[in-house]
Amino acid sequence: MFNDFRTESDSPAYIQLKVYIETLITQGVMPLHHKLPSTRELAGLLGVSRTTVISAYEALERTGWIEAVKGRGNFVSRAAVHLEEPPSIIDWTERLGPQAFLSEEMDLMKHGIKWEKGMIAFTSIAPDERLFDMAGVKRAFLDRMALEGNVLMNYGYAQGYRPLMEYLLGYMRGKGVETEGKDILITNGFTEGFDLLLTAIGQRSGRILCENPTHHTAVKMMKLHGFKPVGVSMEHDGMNMDELRRTLDEGGFDLAYLTPSYHNPTGIVTSPEKRMELLRLLGEHEVPVVEDGFNEELRYSGAHAAPLIACAGIGNSVAYVGSFSKILFPGIRVGWIVADRKLIGYLESLKRARTIHTSTLDQALLFQYLHNGNFERYLKRARTEYKRKYELAVQGCREHIPMKNLSGEGGLHVFVELEETLDARAVLEDCRLRGVVFTPGDIFFTNGRGKNTMRIGFSRVPEDRITEGLRIIGEVVNKHLEDSGILSDPGKGGGSYE
Amino acid sequence: MFNDFRTESDSPAYIQLKVYIETLITQGVMPLHHKLPSTRELAGLLGVSRTTVISAYEALERTGWIEAVKGRGNFVSRAAVHLEEPPSIIDWTERLGPQAFLSEEMDLMKHGIKWEKGMIAFTSIAPDERLFDMAGVKRAFLDRMALEGNVLMNYGYAQGYRPLMEYLLGYMRGKGVETEGKDILITNGFTEGFDLLLTAIGQRSGRILCENPTHHTAVKMMKLHGFKPVGVSMEHDGMNMDELRRTLDEGGFDLAYLTPSYHNPTGIVTSPEKRMELLRLLGEHEVPVVEDGFNEELRYSGAHAAPLIACAGIGNSVAYVGSFSKILFPGIRVGWIVADRKLIGYLESLKRARTIHTSTLDQALLFQYLHNGNFERYLKRARTEYKRKYELAVQGCREHIPMKNLSGEGGLHVFVELEETLDARAVLEDCRLRGVVFTPGDIFFTNGRGKNTMRIGFSRVPEDRITEGLRIIGEVVNKHLEDSGILSDPGKGGGSYE
Repeated sequence: MFNDFRTESDSPAYIQLKVYIETLITQGVMPLHHKLPSTRELAGLLGVSRTTVISAYEALERTGWIEAVKGRGNFVSRAAVHLEEPPSIIDWTERLGPQAFLSEEMDLMKHGIKWEKGMIAFTSIAPDERLFDMAGVKRAFLDRMALEGNVLMNYGYAQGYRPLMEYLLGYMRGKGVETEGKDILITNGFTEGFDLLLTAIGQRSGRILCENPTHHTAVKMMKLHGFKPVGVSMEHDGMNMDELRRTLDEGGFDLAYLTPSYHNPTGIVTSPEKRMELLRLLGEHEVPVVEDGFNEELRYSGAHAAPLIACAGIGNSVAYVGSFSKILFPGIRVGWIVADRKLIGYLESLKRARTIHTSTLDQALLFQYLHNGNFERYLKRARTEYKRKYELAVQGCREHIPMKNLSGEGGLHVFVELEETLDARAVLEDCRLRGVVFTPGDIFFTNGRGKNTMRIGFSRVPEDRITEGLRIIGEVVNKHLEDSGILSDPGKGGGSYE
Repeated sequence: MFNDFRTESDSPAYIQLKVYIETLITQGVMPLHHKLPSTRELAGLLGVSRTTVISAYEALERTGWIEAVKGRGNFVSRAAVHLEEPPSIIDWTERLGPQAFLSEEMDLMKHGIKWEKGMIAFTSIAPDERLFDMAGVKRAFLDRMALEGNVLMNYGYAQGYRPLMEYLLGYMRGKGVETEGKDILITNGFTEGFDLLLTAIGQRSGRILCENPTHHTAVKMMKLHGFKPVGVSMEHDGMNMDELRRTLDEGGFDLAYLTPSYHNPTGIVTSPEKRMELLRLLGEHEVPVVEDGFNEELRYSGAHAAPLIACAGIGNSVAYVGSFSKILFPGIRVGWIVADRKLIGYLESLKRARTIHTSTLDQALLFQYLHNGNFERYLKRARTEYKRKYELAVQGCREHIPMKNLSGEGGLHVFVELEETLDARAVLEDCRLRGVVFTPGDIFFTNGRGKNTMRIGFSRVPEDRITEGLRIIGEVVNKHLEDSGILSDPGKGGGSYE
C-alpha cells in the first residue's frame, strides 16, 4: 500500500493523493474501518508535505470515504458496496431503436476514411487553426469577464445571449435581410439549428427538396428524422431549373434545404437570377425553405449575391441557418437561425427541451470578439490566406488531374468530376497507399450517383503539400484511366460544370 | 443622409460606419450606382478620422456593397434586390408537428410563474453566481489557452475532450464506480444527455418508470419522445417498494429514470438499502436505469450513499448522467454520461448528428479548473454557504408554514406538503401579490396529484429574504386554512414524509 504512489502532473498533490486513496478503498484494498496512517507518518512515507496529507484526508472526509475519530485517527467509514451479483447484464443493442442504428451506420467519423499521421488529408473543410487570432480571443474573454463574469457562468436564456442576438440581427440586416417580423435563436452550430427545424416541421409528404449532391450531414439528419431527401441536379450556376420545375410538379414537399453560396460539396454559387427564380417557384408551390448560410463570407472574387432570406424581402418562408464555424472557431459551437418570429418561438421551446441554452460563455466570447472589431480584420487575413490556397488547389487540379469538370468558386474546397468510368473510391484506395486522402463524392448524392467525384478540402493542408497531394492524385487517376483503356488527357481538366 | 450618424459604443467606429452605410443601401436610400462622398469629405462631415472612412469603405467593398473605380470614387455596386412580391406568406403553425406544439405547451419559462424585480423568488434551483470563483475560472482559461488555445477553438471530437473525459472517469471511480467495460460521453449538460438516451432507446412498451413526483423537465422530455412516465410514490427514504413491485408486475418498462440523491423536487435521498433493493427488482424485470446524478455533491450531513451505477458493480444496466450545473457554472453547459461501452458508442453517433460536439473551450476550461484543484476548495465553501441557507429554509418552513410534511435532506431546495384541502396554486396567487413566488408542486407529478405541494428553492435568495419570504408564505397559508375552516397549527410542521 502507498508504495506505488507518485505525484505526476501539475495538478495539486493532495487531490492526487485523495484519488489514490479512494481507489484503495473502492478496490477493497482498504476495507471498512481500516485505520489510515497518521498524517505525519504518511507525509514521511510519501515524501510530501504534511499539509498535503491533511488536505487529502479532509477531502476524503467531505466525500464520505473516511471519518476522523477524535484522538484515535482516521478510519475508512464507507465500504465500496455493490451487489454481489450484478443486477442484470443488458444487451443494449436489443434495447435501441432505429435512430441509434441509423446514426451509427451513417457516422462518417466511424466508417469514413481513416487518417494516419503524415498523410496529406484533403478530407477536412474545417478552418486552419494556425490562422486563429488568439490574442483577440483572449482579450475578448478578459473584457467580458471583467464586465459580467459571474452572470456568464450561470444559467442564461434558451433564445440566446441578448448582445449576441442583437449583433447578429444587425449583421443579417447588413446582408440586406428585412428583420421586421423575424427573430433569432442561438444554437449549438448549424447542426443543432437544422436538427431543431427538422424536429419542428410536421411530416405531410415526408419529402425534402435539396440540391444533388448536398451536405452529407444534412442528408443523414433528414433521414434520421424520417424525411426522404429528393435532390435536383446542379449546374455551374445552381440547380437545373427545368428539373426543379418537374420535381415540384411531381409531388409535395415539406421543406427545401438549400445552400446557395459555396455549396457543399460542389463549391457552386447560385446566380442571383436563379435565386429569384427558385424562390418564385418554391413560393408558388408553398414550400418553405431552410437556407444554409455556409461559408457565405469566403468569397474571393466575383459579385456578391444576397442570401435567399434577403431576396425574399418581407416574405417569411425562408429560415436562415448561420454559423461562423468554417471561418471563426468551430470549437465553440455557436450558430443561429433567423426566421419568422412565430416559428422562432416554437424552436425556442424545443431548444429548451434539448440543451436548455447554448453556452453563455461562448456566446459572450463570440459577441465581444465581434464587437471589438476583430472579425473584419480576421476575415481580411483569412480571405488572403485561403484565396492563395484556393488558387493553388484549382491550378493543381487542372494541371495534374485528368477530369470532366472542376467546380468551386470560393470557400474551403473544390469538387472534381472524373471520367464517368472511373471509381473515386478505388482511386482513393490507391491514393491512400501513397499517403493522400480525399472525400469520395458519392456520400453527398441523394440518388447513389457521383461515384466518379471527389471533394478536395484544402483549408488545413500546407501550401507545398497541396500541390504535391494533387500531383499524386493525378498520377493515380492516370493509372486508373490507363487500366480502363481511356487515354489520359490532363489538358482536358477545368471545363465548366455543364 | 449621414446627419443621423453617431458613433456610440466602444465598438470600432469604422464598423459602425460600415453598418450605417449598409443600412442606407439595403433600405434603398442609396440606390445602385450612387456615388459615395470622398473619404476626405465624409470624414469632415462626420467628424471622424479619414482612416475610419477608408476602413469602412474597404470593408464595404469586401462584402460587395460598394466598388472603387480608379480615379472616379466609390459607387454602390449592389442594390438591395428582393422579390417585389414576397414569394409566399407561410402560416408556420400549419407546418409544424406535434413536438413543436408539445414543447411550447410544456415550456415553463413561457407559461410558468412570472417573476418581477424585487420579488422574493423561491423558484430557482440554480447556484448562486455570487459564490463563483471567477479568479479560478480566469486562471483556468489562461492556463489552457497558453497550452493549446488554437486547438481548443477548432473542431473537436463528438465523444469529448480527452483530458476532461479521463478526469471524469477518475471522478466516477472515486464514487466507487467500476469503469471497466464502460465509457463516457460529454454532453451539453444533463438535458442533452437524457435527450440522447431517450432518442436511442427503442420503444417497446413505451413506458418509463420514475419517481412520483419527479423532475418536470424529465417528464416533458419523456412525453416529447412519446414515452409515458409511470410514477411510483416517494417515502422519506425513497420509492415505496411495495408499489414498485406491483408496478413492475403490472407491465413492461423500456427504462427507469431515477434520482436517488437530493431528488427533484422532494430533496429525498434514497437509502442504501432501497438502492440495492430497487436495483435487484429492476434487474429481475430487465429494466435498464438512467440515473440522474443531480446534486449528489451537495450533502450537508448524514452518510454518503453510493450512486446506483456504483451499487451495480460490474453490471451494465445503469447509465449515469452527471452534471455540475447545480454547483459549478451551469452557463457553460457541460454534462456527461457514463454507461456500457457499446451504448456510449451509439450515443456518440447520435450526438454527432445533433450538435457535433460540446464546446471544446468549455470542456477545456472545466477540465483545467478541476485539474487546478479549484473544485474541492469551491465545494467546501459552497457547502458551507448553502448549508446555512438550507438550515434557515428548514427552520423558516417549520416555524411559519402550517404543513403536513417537509422533505429535503440537502441540495438547493426543500419540498412542502400542505394540508390536503389546500391549493398551492391559489396560495401562490396570493403570495405573488405580496411579492413572494415559489414553484407549485403539481408540475412534478406524473398523475395529476400534488396540488397541495410546493418546491422552495433557496440557493439564490439572500439569507434575510429567506426568512421573510417563508413568513409571508406562512401567513398566506394560514389565511387559506382559516378560509377553508381548518384550524391553523404551525407547530404541526416538520413531520417526516410518512
